[in-house]
Amino acid sequence: MEEIFTLLIDCSDEKGLIYKVTSVLYQSGCNIIRNDEYVSQEDVHFFMRSEFSGQSAMVHTVIAELKKVLPPDAHIRLSRKEKRNIVILVTKEHHCLSELLTRAHFNELNANILAVISNYDTLQNFTEKFNIPYQYVSHQDLSREAHEEKIVAAIKQYAPDYVVLAKYMRILTPAFVQEFENKIINIHHSFLPAFIGANPYRQAFERGVKIVGATAHFVNNQLDEGPIIAQSVIPVDHRQDAAEMALAGKDIEKYVLSNALRIVFDDKVFVNGNKTIVFD
Amino acid sequence: MEEIFTLLIDCSDEKGLIYKVTSVLYQSGCNIIRNDEYVSQEDVHFFMRSEFSGQSAMVHTVIAELKKVLPPDAHIRLSRKEKRNIVILVTKEHHCLSELLTRAHFNELNANILAVISNYDTLQNFTEKFNIPYQYVSHQDLSREAHEEKIVAAIKQYAPDYVVLAKYMRILTPAFVQEFENKIINIHHSFLPAFIGANPYRQAFERGVKIVGATAHFVNNQLDEGPIIAQSVIPVDHRQDAAEMALAGKDIEKYVLSNALRIVFDDKVFVNGNKTIVFD
Amino acid sequence: MEEIFTLLIDCSDEKGLIYKVTSVLYQSGCNIIRNDEYVSQEDVHFFMRSEFSGQSAMVHTVIAELKKVLPPDAHIRLSRKEKRNIVILVTKEHHCLSELLTRAHFNELNANILAVISNYDTLQNFTEKFNIPYQYVSHQDLSREAHEEKIVAAIKQYAPDYVVLAKYMRILTPAFVQEFENKIINIHHSFLPAFIGANPYRQAFERGVKIVGATAHFVNNQLDEGPIIAQSVIPVDHRQDAAEMALAGKDIEKYVLSNALRIVFDDKVFVNGNKTIVFD
Amino acid sequence: MEEIFTLLIDCSDEKGLIYKVTSVLYQSGCNIIRNDEYVSQEDVHFFMRSEFSGQSAMVHTVIAELKKVLPPDAHIRLSRKEKRNIVILVTKEHHCLSELLTRAHFNELNANILAVISNYDTLQNFTEKFNIPYQYVSHQDLSREAHEEKIVAAIKQYAPDYVVLAKYMRILTPAFVQEFENKIINIHHSFLPAFIGANPYRQAFERGVKIVGATAHFVNNQLDEGPIIAQSVIPVDHRQDAAEMALAGKDIEKYVLSNALRIVFDDKVFVNGNKTIVFD
Repeated sequence: MEEIFTLLIDCSDEKGLIYKVTSVLYQSGCNIIRNDEYVSQEDVHFFMRSEFSGQSAMVHTVIAELKKVLPPDAHIRLSRKEKRNIVILVTKEHHCLSELLTRAHFNELNANILAVISNYDTLQNFTEKFNIPYQYVSHQDLSREAHEEKIVAAIKQYAPDYVVLAKYMRILTPAFVQEFENKIINIHHSFLPAFIGANPYRQAFERGVKIVGATAHFVNNQLDEGPIIAQSVIPVDHRQDAAEMALAGKDIEKYVLSNALRIVFDDKVFVNGNKTIVFD
Repeated sequence: MEEIFTLLIDCSDEKGLIYKVTSVLYQSGCNIIRNDEYVSQEDVHFFMRSEFSGQSAMVHTVIAELKKVLPPDAHIRLSRKEKRNIVILVTKEHHCLSELLTRAHFNELNANILAVISNYDTLQNFTEKFNIPYQYVSHQDLSREAHEEKIVAAIKQYAPDYVVLAKYMRILTPAFVQEFENKIINIHHSFLPAFIGANPYRQAFERGVKIVGATAHFVNNQLDEGPIIAQSVIPVDHRQDAAEMALAGKDIEKYVLSNALRIVFDDKVFVNGNKTIVFD
Repeated sequence: MEEIFTLLIDCSDEKGLIYKVTSVLYQSGCNIIRNDEYVSQEDVHFFMRSEFSGQSAMVHTVIAELKKVLPPDAHIRLSRKEKRNIVILVTKEHHCLSELLTRAHFNELNANILAVISNYDTLQNFTEKFNIPYQYVSHQDLSREAHEEKIVAAIKQYAPDYVVLAKYMRILTPAFVQEFENKIINIHHSFLPAFIGANPYRQAFERGVKIVGATAHFVNNQLDEGPIIAQSVIPVDHRQDAAEMALAGKDIEKYVLSNALRIVFDDKVFVNGNKTIVFD
Repeated sequence: MEEIFTLLIDCSDEKGLIYKVTSVLYQSGCNIIRNDEYVSQEDVHFFMRSEFSGQSAMVHTVIAELKKVLPPDAHIRLSRKEKRNIVILVTKEHHCLSELLTRAHFNELNANILAVISNYDTLQNFTEKFNIPYQYVSHQDLSREAHEEKIVAAIKQYAPDYVVLAKYMRILTPAFVQEFENKIINIHHSFLPAFIGANPYRQAFERGVKIVGATAHFVNNQLDEGPIIAQSVIPVDHRQDAAEMALAGKDIEKYVLSNALRIVFDDKVFVNGNKTIVFD
């Protein structure tokens, strides 16, 4: 039985890598549908993504053969085309959450939303319309660490592939980030690295910029500093105050976040240090 | 004889200002072609731009009457539609200069380029093809202050309405800026306030952004901190190194700069503190 | 008691119109918050929109006084800031409908959705999650005219201010359009006037375009020919087939439609023949 | 001695093509720098572009080996990285020509401009500032065919790789197009297929669109119907008349044309029937 697979490889660059990988696929009777490669000149590192059709039984042979021909530092990931499992964290704003709930409901997200977790109950009724469990974990009377511990426990229940911060307005501790390394995706309401930190639209208004934007990125230890997956912008002008900029920005935020999730869930994104390589 | 005039007014806001201004214009037999107003809620300040046709003889009456009806803090500027006089400063990069020379040559800039001044002679031959004087003022063996003094002297010779920094890569002293307050327009090769300072494309590359941009702004004492006139962006991806981002950025820089000059020279831009109000 | 009003005027152009209108407002103690005007040179017609605060009791005087000073062909509309009542027509695609339902639910649409009417029951369950009535009016075994009659009757029940075609895939008869003149807003899935008619993404794919778009417009008798309110585009490339272009286009369609509705419901759009004047 | 080469292959698709091509390159000691492939599902055709470094002496072996392993319908093109030779045709508008002259002058075009040919002498003086020959071939008192014959003769003198129509406002006969098949690149001043034919900005103004654009395409027999290479757009509004839209459009036209030329001259564009495949 033929199935569609995605093969992700990264390793030190050397001559002949594309030949070697495609040779293994060809010998195993696989048919490449789409192939993308990139060599980062900074660290002389090779990245390759192959979408191919082949017999399921061939998977183990392919991986074994690849291991023989690739450099010892190679990461090899081979996955079936299937939905990712995600947990979404929110605070009070609905626009990113409602976008994701709607897309998932109509089968346009390539992910199962296992649960929505929040430090407020504001979006509970709305979430439950979509038959998705909502866990309200208030931070009241709790230290940051104690609250986060409860959030982590709540997330772990679901063992998600990714944690999506869809306007979760709490700062994360390094412990949290380490727990889900390269698995947390955040939407930041500015065109990073402009306006890092709180109230970016207020900052944008005060700086008098003519364009505002949004950034989806993986989260690492530094606030708003992780690898950028996608960005987009819209023009603004002097007539718009900070609140109106924020309103206009919401359309961009939900668009950028769902676009970033689409390419991550389709295995089109490599993380390389503090950057991403996107084969879209 | 009827002529076209532009009237710029700004003052503390109060009830009836549009009525009062248009009343004066109507009583003086002027016909408004285009009218724009804005009230900044932050500082309760009123801005108005009127383009109108009227008898030249009426100019003094209009100004005198406006002074009677407007608040005492009003700034009133009335100008004929005519070309501005400018001096352009450059270092070695040609793309913004060649754009301005070409537009001026074909009468598409709304400005007379009186001279090009540079700390290098790199662009001398090219500039002189357009019959524009080029002054080469080397900074070699000079202190920053001594060099700037020579540059200021060179500029003053021409008494320009505006000084355009078309990729002039020297940092200006506060003395220089004060000399030409709100008359210096700079093109910065990033989407400010991201990547302030040197080598913005290198910074952008290292941060792994997915969009780069350019910003035209008035220059004040703080480096890269003056009121923004225009901004624009283009998408980039992981395949582009810093040099390729810079190359792609040049198209945006020259577009943003010439667009900013167009609206400034058409009297469509008010400076309000660290922001601009643009009636385009 | 002070309230916010929007005044829309259009009439033959003549000298002094802004003065005359603002004079009436000033004499009536109203305070202009925002004012926009435009003269169409083609038909020498004047358009003005004023947002102002004033006593409710003043409304009748203002209108009576404006009638005295404005040309006899003037249209004068004065409205309170309040939500519009709308009915939405859909077929099977959810993306525009779900956008509008979500925005209305979170009070971000400036409209009450009175009902959703469709020739299919596909979106009934989803609509009812939002407690909005859904009327399923099948076209099966009915002539175009007979079906439309039932649709018109269903709409009329609700006496809406606007009828929104949120991917309603039936061609309307002139009778339908006349019934709701300048009150029907459609989202067309192409950058009009490119790809008029059916299957625009298929057409776009076959033409090999590098950009696709969406257009929101008022509907008049000619298919896809009414006054354009808003347009937006996204880049595509050879890798995307017609189905993928359509998927990418959905994000633009819902953005353009909700943006168009925002400006229409805020009384920022004049229709002038086959064009719109948008004061945004 | 190592050099950089670009290999372009297209042929009927079959299993193992990437493997076969990269195998030949690997056996010949070449090192792939960048590799792009695409299979058009419509006609089951394979396209591949490889940039690689290798010994010049290997070229003939590589081509011979590729011919052995590829399907009989394969087109194989192998080229050194070097400048293309072009002839530019213009009428009276300068903006695209001046962009290309400037870029070539500063070594940013990847092409040698061998000559500029025009049916007017309007741009002669300007062109000659750049030391480029200008041939004025008036169409006065000549039939279309007779004039074209002279133009063709003038072009052929230079044996250019490409003929660039940089706002050449004459309609070409099929004979002309056949003479330089897939070698003529035109800039059309609209977002094709909207506003085919004459006066697109007038058409855009009359239709009341909110966005205008430009399209660079290869020329084939049908007017404005050839394969699209690049497109871009800018927003416009009701304030802009046809002349102002045309002015705004010029910035987009010159940007789109020079971007299209960049990717064509870098061998990044395949023509496939009426479409292009662009590996940028």
